[in-house]
Amino acid sequence: TRNIDLAVVAGDGIGIEVVEQGLAVLEAALSGTDVKVSTTPFDLGARRWHATGETLTDEDLAAIRTHDAILLGAIGDPTVPSGVLERGLLLKLRFALDHYVNLRPGKLYPGVRSPLADPGEIDFVVVREGTEGPYVGNGGALRVGTPHEIATEVSVNTAFGVERVVRDAFARAQARPRKHLTLVHKHNVLVHAGHLWRRTVEAVNAEFPDVTTDYLHVDAATIFLTTNPSRFDVIVTDNLFGDILTDQAAAITGGIGLAASANINPDRTAPSMFEPVHGSAPDIAGQGKADPTATVLSVAMLLDHLGLAEESQRVEAAVAADLAERGTRVRSTAEVGRELAARVAG
Amino acid sequence: TRNIDLAVVAGDGIGIEVVEQGLAVLEAALSGTDVKVSTTPFDLGARRWHATGETLTDEDLAAIRTHDAILLGAIGDPTVPSGVLERGLLLKLRFALDHYVNLRPGKLYPGVRSPLADPGEIDFVVVREGTEGPYVGNGGALRVGTPHEIATEVSVNTAFGVERVVRDAFARAQARPRKHLTLVHKHNVLVHAGHLWRRTVEAVNAEFPDVTTDYLHVDAATIFLTTNPSRFDVIVTDNLFGDILTDQAAAITGGIGLAASANINPDRTAPSMFEPVHGSAPDIAGQGKADPTATVLSVAMLLDHLGLAEESQRVEAAVAADLAERGTRVRSTAEVGRELAARVAG
Ligand SMILES: CC(C)[C@H](C(=O)O)[C@@H](O)C(=O)O
Ligand SMILES: CC(C)[C@H](C(=O)O)[C@@H](O)C(=O)O
Repeated sequence: TRNIDLAVVAGDGIGIEVVEQGLAVLEAALSGTDVKVSTTPFDLGARRWHATGETLTDEDLAAIRTHDAILLGAIGDPTVPSGVLERGLLLKLRFALDHYVNLRPGKLYPGVRSPLADPGEIDFVVVREGTEGPYVGNGGALRVGTPHEIATEVSVNTAFGVERVVRDAFARAQARPRKHLTLVHKHNVLVHAGHLWRRTVEAVNAEFPDVTTDYLHVDAATIFLTTNPSRFDVIVTDNLFGDILTDQAAAITGGIGLAASANINPDRTAPSMFEPVHGSAPDIAGQGKADPTATVLSVAMLLDHLGLAEESQRVEAAVAADLAERGTRVRSTAEVGRELAARVAG
Repeated sequence: TRNIDLAVVAGDGIGIEVVEQGLAVLEAALSGTDVKVSTTPFDLGARRWHATGETLTDEDLAAIRTHDAILLGAIGDPTVPSGVLERGLLLKLRFALDHYVNLRPGKLYPGVRSPLADPGEIDFVVVREGTEGPYVGNGGALRVGTPHEIATEVSVNTAFGVERVVRDAFARAQARPRKHLTLVHKHNVLVHAGHLWRRTVEAVNAEFPDVTTDYLHVDAATIFLTTNPSRFDVIVTDNLFGDILTDQAAAITGGIGLAASANINPDRTAPSMFEPVHGSAPDIAGQGKADPTATVLSVAMLLDHLGLAEESQRVEAAVAADLAERGTRVRSTAEVGRELAARVAG
């Protein structure tokens, strides 16, 4: 028997509710196999910060590191100043654990209503860089609160950082039927960063000659996500553009209630982290209204990452079947979780 | 009689074609008034750069400055390295002439088909900051072309720059029936710049107590532009987020063929510039296929800026009437221009 040591960061708001269902589905997927899961809950997020002023201590981080993977619900709460938990906890995890591939599928499942009139088939994946760009926290402010205030944010991009994520994206494109990679950036304005990305895609293409590529400015990408999302297969882009495009991708494929993500350390020098794209949704927290589907699909990505491809497919198939029959039925978070677990168990 | 001295930068690709029609409609709007237009063409863009290596000389800029306004078609060509014309010409004009308000309406006209299944009424305006943010050109690269390359892009935001555009946006919101302003940023990640924007909106709100405000992260804004664009009245945002959101706004309101914009210097220390949101579209250039409507609507904004509100409304009404009857009729650039001019002339 194999044991999976899972660090669980349920976090804030609906994070707690959706993670519970994600874990139930994970259990169901592994029942009858010789793989067991043991979970370690980590009390991180708004409650902990209010109680102790801590976001993520060195001890927390060291303890998390010993796990095989992390399941995260959602981080953030209006009672905590903006940025404290995002920078001090969520992004700290992504950066410290070198999650340089932030993988976010954009898939319109049969039965799901898209807000687009004519969505066509939507089935792409965004490979969002996770450890560089404008997210590095390399900014500052001077003369704050005066008429002479100046605030800067520095986007840092390295050949090392861009090349590794671009190579990962090419490999993913190569493994897909269409074998197409779209670089999204804004190299006509952000010329230094943009040209580094562009040259890197051109160079790495030599290692993947069967993958076709094209380029879109980020503004144009939002247009195509509206008018012709079928054109996308794999998108590779920087941390900020990836953040923006993946929320838009979620919107056109049925909403953030369905959007999964994986923060992957492909070198496996630290645990990867699986989390829904949505936030803690304080407005509906504690009411059993949140859709756990995004978390369950993130669990499918977790299983796949841990080499449990068959179990991963079973979870995704259960979600697909549920979505196909869902219609406009209103169910609680727990009901959706229970039905998905039942489908997975067979 | 009053004379309007108009600098005309037709630019590249379809820019030349659409500007011709924009000027024809402008003439039509002023015929029968005592306002005359004289135009000075400026040969700027790819052709000039290939011939002379120049993008925008000090003499060009000085000459443009003497005009009352600028009508610009489109800048950019695949034969010119990316960034050369954008940074050296288009953005140089916006920055040098202090176009700190980049005004971009997002309006779904009756008769226009939106790619959204249920678009509702869409009628908002984006006030995009035009002289700061990640567009300042304050980046660089080290060890280019080596495995140790590092490329940075600095977003620069000042109290001076943010406050003036926020105040302008509040004034615009106050003049509209709904009196609502939405700040879009990403202050949970870009904490220094984001908090400056947020504090500024809060502070300036005191001068416009009847304007309600809310805040959206840029990623969430792309969701609402997909699922509920009616919620927006006035959006104020930074240069890069504004670039992205206004292309998405164009997409949901019928495409960039219809999207107008104004680069405004509200202090009138230099001429403002009016241009369609779309680019030079080299793939269809010279074929008479481009839709001049975005340019014509930009001409309406130009007229309004010059105090010719009635003429501006006549142009917009002509476009609205044309769009209402347009259907799927295919017309050339010149045909659309001619019909619009005829409607304007009455
Ligand atoms: C909460 C926030 C810091 C985060 C991000 O910007 O990456 C979120 O929007 C996401 O996409 O996971
Ligand atoms: C061409 C480019 C520099 C420009 C911009 O990014 O501002 C364009 O996309 C626009 O929106 O006017």
